[in-house]
Formats: sequence, C-alpha cells, structure tokens
Amino acid sequence: MLIVQKFGGSSVGTLERIRACAQRCLDAQRQGNDLVVVVSAMAGETNRLIKLANRLRALGRAEEEGEGKGPYVAVDGAGDPVHERELDQLVSTGENVSAALLAMAIHDLGGEAISLVGHQIGMITDRTYTNARIKELRGDRIRREIEAGKIVVCAGFQGLDADGNITTLGRGGSDTSAVALAAAIGADVCEIYTDVDGVYTTDPRIEPKARKIAEITCEEMLELASLGAKVLQIRSVAFAMKYGVAVHVRSSLNNNEGTWIVSEYRSMEAPVVVGLALDRNEAKVTLTNVPDVPGVAAMVFNRLAEAGVVVDMIIQNASRDGTTDLTFTVPENDLERSVKELESLDLPRREALTIVSDPEICKISIVGVGMRSHSGVAAKAFQILAAEGINIHMVSTSEIKVSVVVQERYGELALRALHAGFGLDEGPSAETSKAS
Amino acid sequence: MLIVQKFGGSSVGTLERIRACAQRCLDAQRQGNDLVVVVSAMAGETNRLIKLANRLRALGRAEEEGEGKGPYVAVDGAGDPVHERELDQLVSTGENVSAALLAMAIHDLGGEAISLVGHQIGMITDRTYTNARIKELRGDRIRREIEAGKIVVCAGFQGLDADGNITTLGRGGSDTSAVALAAAIGADVCEIYTDVDGVYTTDPRIEPKARKIAEITCEEMLELASLGAKVLQIRSVAFAMKYGVAVHVRSSLNNNEGTWIVSEYRSMEAPVVVGLALDRNEAKVTLTNVPDVPGVAAMVFNRLAEAGVVVDMIIQNASRDGTTDLTFTVPENDLERSVKELESLDLPRREALTIVSDPEICKISIVGVGMRSHSGVAAKAFQILAAEGINIHMVSTSEIKVSVVVQERYGELALRALHAGFGLDEGPSAETSKAS
Repeated sequence: MLIVQKFGGSSVGTLERIRACAQRCLDAQRQGNDLVVVVSAMAGETNRLIKLANRLRALGRAEEEGEGKGPYVAVDGAGDPVHERELDQLVSTGENVSAALLAMAIHDLGGEAISLVGHQIGMITDRTYTNARIKELRGDRIRREIEAGKIVVCAGFQGLDADGNITTLGRGGSDTSAVALAAAIGADVCEIYTDVDGVYTTDPRIEPKARKIAEITCEEMLELASLGAKVLQIRSVAFAMKYGVAVHVRSSLNNNEGTWIVSEYRSMEAPVVVGLALDRNEAKVTLTNVPDVPGVAAMVFNRLAEAGVVVDMIIQNASRDGTTDLTFTVPENDLERSVKELESLDLPRREALTIVSDPEICKISIVGVGMRSHSGVAAKAFQILAAEGINIHMVSTSEIKVSVVVQERYGELALRALHAGFGLDEGPSAETSKAS
Repeated sequence: MLIVQKFGGSSVGTLERIRACAQRCLDAQRQGNDLVVVVSAMAGETNRLIKLANRLRALGRAEEEGEGKGPYVAVDGAGDPVHERELDQLVSTGENVSAALLAMAIHDLGGEAISLVGHQIGMITDRTYTNARIKELRGDRIRREIEAGKIVVCAGFQGLDADGNITTLGRGGSDTSAVALAAAIGADVCEIYTDVDGVYTTDPRIEPKARKIAEITCEEMLELASLGAKVLQIRSVAFAMKYGVAVHVRSSLNNNEGTWIVSEYRSMEAPVVVGLALDRNEAKVTLTNVPDVPGVAAMVFNRLAEAGVVVDMIIQNASRDGTTDLTFTVPENDLERSVKELESLDLPRREALTIVSDPEICKISIVGVGMRSHSGVAAKAFQILAAEGINIHMVSTSEIKVSVVVQERYGELALRALHAGFGLDEGPSAETSKAS
C-alpha cells in the first residue's frame, strides 16, 4: 500500500515523540508499505513564531503611540495584509524544522528518509497568504524519492504561489496538505495521527457515554464539523470527499483503529444517526413585524453578508396581517455587530419593526446519511426533547441533518437525551470490544 | 548607490535590535540608496537547532547502547554525512525567521520590504551539505524587487543544489552570501555589520594599544585570517577579492566608519605592516635524522594530507651526513593524530629517525602589502624579538607576510613588542581622531 501519514503538532511535540513517530513510520514501511509523511510544527512552535511577530509589532506601537496598527490575531486571523506574506515566510519554518528532525530520527533508527519543504514538494497555491488554497500538486519529486525506497517527510501547512512566494494553508492546514498529497500521489489511505482516538458520537466531555465512531462518511463529517474540528481540519474533509481519499483518523499514542472517514460506508449499513454536535457559539436574532413584501429578506441578508457575518439557520413564519417574523442565527461573536447593521438598515415601515436578539441559545445537530432512507428522525427528536420538557426555538433540516435550537442552559441535557434516544450510547464500540 | 548590508546574529539577536537594523536600512534607503540586506539567524538560534539534532541523536544512543553514531560536532564540523542534508534543511530555517522578522520591522517603520529565502534568492551551490560552495547566483528576482522600490531582505547562509535541496555555506556563511550577492548584482559596497568596530591591527585583548584599521586589502586580510575571523568569515574575503567587491566592516551599534576591505589601497600609501596576528593553535613536529633522499618529504606530507591534517609552515634544514631535519607545524588539535600517522609510515632508515612534537609554540604573522617594496621587515622583526630575548624557532616568509614561531609563553610579549616596533600603536586611529 501507498500510505500518507500525517503527524500533528502534539505528535511531534518533543524529540521523544518525534522518535516514536519515526518508529511508527518504519514499522509501516517494514510491513511492505510505501510511505509519505506530513508533519506539523512541533506543538507551540507556530505560536512562538507568531508571538515574535506580534512582539515586534508591539515594539513599534510602543514607540509610535497613536499610529499603531492592529496586532496579528493568528495565522488565519485578520492580520495586517501587508505583513501576511512575511508571516507565511516566518511560520512555515516551524514545519521545516519538524520535517528535518523526523527524517533524522528515521535515519537514526536505521531507515532511509528525506525531508521536503515548500519548493521541493511542489504544492502550488493561490496567493491568499495565511489562508491559501491549493491549486496544483506536482508529485514528481515525491514519487522519485519513494521509488528510491525512501520515507518522504513533507513539511505540512505550506505551499508556494506561482511566483515562488511561500504561502500557508491556514491553521490546521497540515491535514489539508496530507489529504491533497494523498490525492496527488494516489495513496490508498491518508492516516491522520493526533492525540485523540478518533471521532466520537458526540463530545465525550459532555456525554461520557459517547462512543468512538468506526466509520463515517465525509458528508456526515462536514455536518459534524464541531466534533471533527478537534481531530482534523474540516477543510481537509472536503478535499477528501472531492478526490475520494480514504482518511483514517487515529491516535499516535497507541495502535488502535481510529475512525475511518470514507466516501461511502463499506462494512455496514449506514446508521440512521451517526453523531450529534452541540454548538454553543450561536446567537438568535428575531425581526418582528417585518412587512411581508418582496425584497426585505434580501436587504437583511445582503447587509449581513457584506459585513462578513455568516448566517446559519433562517426561519420565516407564515404571514399574519401583512407582517411576518424573521428569525436567524449568527455566530455569538458577531451578534452585536449584526444588530448594529440591521438597525442602520432603511427597511420599510421601520417604526413598527423590532429587533430582538438572544445570545443564550445553542444548536444541536443530529447527523446521519441513513436519514435519506429513514423518515421520522425529526419527529423522534422532537419527542425526545418534549419528554425532557425542553422547548424548541428553531428547527432546520437537510437531507442528512436535523438541527434544533434550544435555550443554552438546556443544551447539555438535550444532547444527552438525544444521544440515548438515538441509541448512540448503546453497544460497545469497536475499541471497547477489542479491549474487553 | 546599490548597497548590500549584512547583519550578523548578534545584530539581529533581539527584536529590539532587529528594529534598529530596520531603521538603519530605511535611513540608507532614504539617503537615495537601493538596498539588499542579508541576515544571519538570531544569535543562538543556529545552536539551538543543532542542539535539537544532537539531542535527538543522543536519544538514539541512549536506547541502543553500543551502536551509537557520533554526535553532530557543528554545522561545519565532521557530522554524519547521511544527516547533513537534513541538518541543512533544519538550520537554514534560522535565517528564514530573521529575514521575515526584519522585513516586518521595515514595514512597521513605514518602509517597503520583502524577505527572500533559498529558492527565491536563486543561489545555486554544489551539494556539499553543511559547507557548500556557491556556483551561480541568479539575481533576477532580487533586481525585480529592487526596481519595485523594495528593500530586499535575503536569508543568508543558504543556497540550493541543482536538485533544489537546501545547502548551507558553513558557519559564518552569511558573509559569503552577502559578498556573493554584492558581486552578482554589482553592488557598490557590501557592508558587514557586526558587534565590533572593524578590524584591528592586532587582537585588542592582548594589546590594548591596537588600533582600528581604516583600510586593508583583501590579500592582507586573508593573511590575517585569525584577526579577521572575529569580524567576518575569511572565505567571504576570497570572494570579495575574486569579484572586486568593496567590503566595509562596521558596527551595528553606531555610525562610525569601520574597516574597508578593498582590492587596492585608495586613500593612502600602502603601510609596510598593517597588522599582526597571533595563532596559539599551532604545534610543531620535528623529524630528525631523515635520510636526505628524494621522496621522503612527499611520503610524510601525502600521508598527513590523506589524514586531513592541514600543514602550515614547513622547514627543512640543509643536509648533514646524508640526513636532515624536517620541521613543520600542524593545528594543535591534530597533533596527536599526526604523530600517529607518521609513526606508522614505512620511512627509509626508520630506526634512526626520531619524531619530536611540541604543542607549546605559537605563530606570529606580520602582514603588509608594503613589504613588496620595502625590504628588511624580517630583519627588523628578528631585531625586535632579540631585544626582548625571545628565541625564534621557525621563520617563513611570503611576499606580504613574515611568520615566526616562538615559545607559546613568549607569544604575547612578542606580539606587543612587534606591535610597538612596527609603529602600529603610534598615532590615533580614524575613529579616535573623530571622537577627540
């Protein structure tokens, strides 16, 4: 098999762990596999580099009080655009360091390895510094080194634009690097090593009965972004889906099977519900007495889109007396800004209209491709919540997802009730059965 | 003017100092100059990276007692050849970091800058990892950025081999990068910023009356390597000589003129003696009763060359009774090895021959291109040393240098006597006259 293995920052966080990764690479190679490895920066290194940039800038602000520019927020944050190119030149060095060290560790253990960085990997991106998109991946150098029997260790997270400037793929971009590489060289699997065991049916910190999922489709994973974000960058899943790459998320601390993220279920019938996500970072906005005339909703959502606010759920009730209520959710951080934008809008019959906002809500998403062939998931969810006396504020459904908005303080209770109600905490997980 | 400025590790050792360098760059640009800047890694960074590699290797030794491999000695040391490529991929990141930070600092101060690393600079080297030689420098990208009004900040110390692998130029290689860049883009001057004021007539720690030299030729600088090594990499001087680059070594802490290293003296007549160097790291080996037949010296020095020992001075006395004495100096660190090699040599009439070694010697070099037209420098040196009662063990002369070997404990006394005797501590230096 041709395997791409990706080791995250904590998996290469110390020299000891780098050596453990090297051993794992060699084990895989000795089992007859060809190996390409993608590494992140050692844990903390990217932040150290960003801090250097921030402190440098702070020096400037201290000296020139008043004409200060904003600090760097983060690699993928809204930094000063002039600096973003330099920030990418700076932070990409973190991955170069871990790639070289891992290659050395493999040598030390008697293997053959070569580390490759940006221009050697041949990953061409657009020029959106700090958050670039991959345009092309020329895998010839990688293929040549594999044919020479080497384990190829690639610095993740980075690419080059058409002029040879270094770009980075945004925080967590090494996952995307790995999946893109796997697609480009036609790997059989892309293994994402991390410090958790896989993707769980829900956040185990909220529901200790959460089980590790053995297999999940890319589609479902995208809908469960908030669950998945802890184990891999969700953008990489879209990539995996587009190119049909099988991704195996697993722990770098043991040899257990993790979670396979696949195009289609292979080993079993699709579960009706595969997992639940709780999103506390939502806020609700309701416009009441909105005149029910064409164009109003367009005005509202255009303004929010221009302001860069990502609206999630939208509900409009049936008209009554020529007016209607319009309810939608926005990220909690954008709530204040959103309300300000709406207040400044020149809506028809503005005086009668009220804007009510509520940050104290949360969203629970129930996801499973099996819903396509099973009806009644929404009805069952309502029943489960009703049995707990939990009021539902909003509902939205898609082909493979039902989302409900409830009061924030009922969020965890609702999640646990749904987890039990949909049978997710029944039955031992693959791992549990092995261990028992 | 088109100026190349090079900032060493201590000049970019902190964010504050990086900001000061940025200000200096902008000042030079605002005076109407075009600017290319070459930076070293922040002080300590290269060593930190080498230490990571060494500690990684030590982990391996700890685990596999007995089959340990040698540690990395240094970037330019005799490391494990298999690792050297990776070591270069690793340590080159240090320069990338300071280049990006300096470009950011220039932006922060209102200037325009762009940082360039290995593949962007276009410096092609051979594939001698950790100690590569420059083969070609394609300056198009640099020229394009200069034409766009930018200060171009290049990561020093590194290049690429023909296959795009990262190479480094050996410790202090950023000086060589800077001079090579200056040659490639036809710069008017290459300014080497460091934490000392320039090159001194001798080591001021030994002779406090040492003066800063205003102007010195490349030729002299090469002969005074041990003096120069404190302020710039001597290899860069050979480069400067070959390509006729004017180098100005100066302090990054003030605006004083430093030392100009030039092809030919411009402003004054060549001094007879420009400087004195004391080299304590020499040892003397004497073969007595060497049969005076052809080929013996060849056997001796071939063997030493094969063993990688660099022999410095060689003296062979006139033959006496068909035998002669052969005396030469080697680096003190190589003495033991050299003697072993010689003992294992199958020399004719080996039984009569004795090998005597003496590490307790030192070499003083008296250098000046003016010697070409002034005779009597050697005679004067002997006279000065005789007046101090110092016995001379060996003498060698070249067109612009007289070297004498004396007992190590007389080294400093000899140096001071010669410094005074050749008039080097008379007269105020350029800097002193400015200050007074």
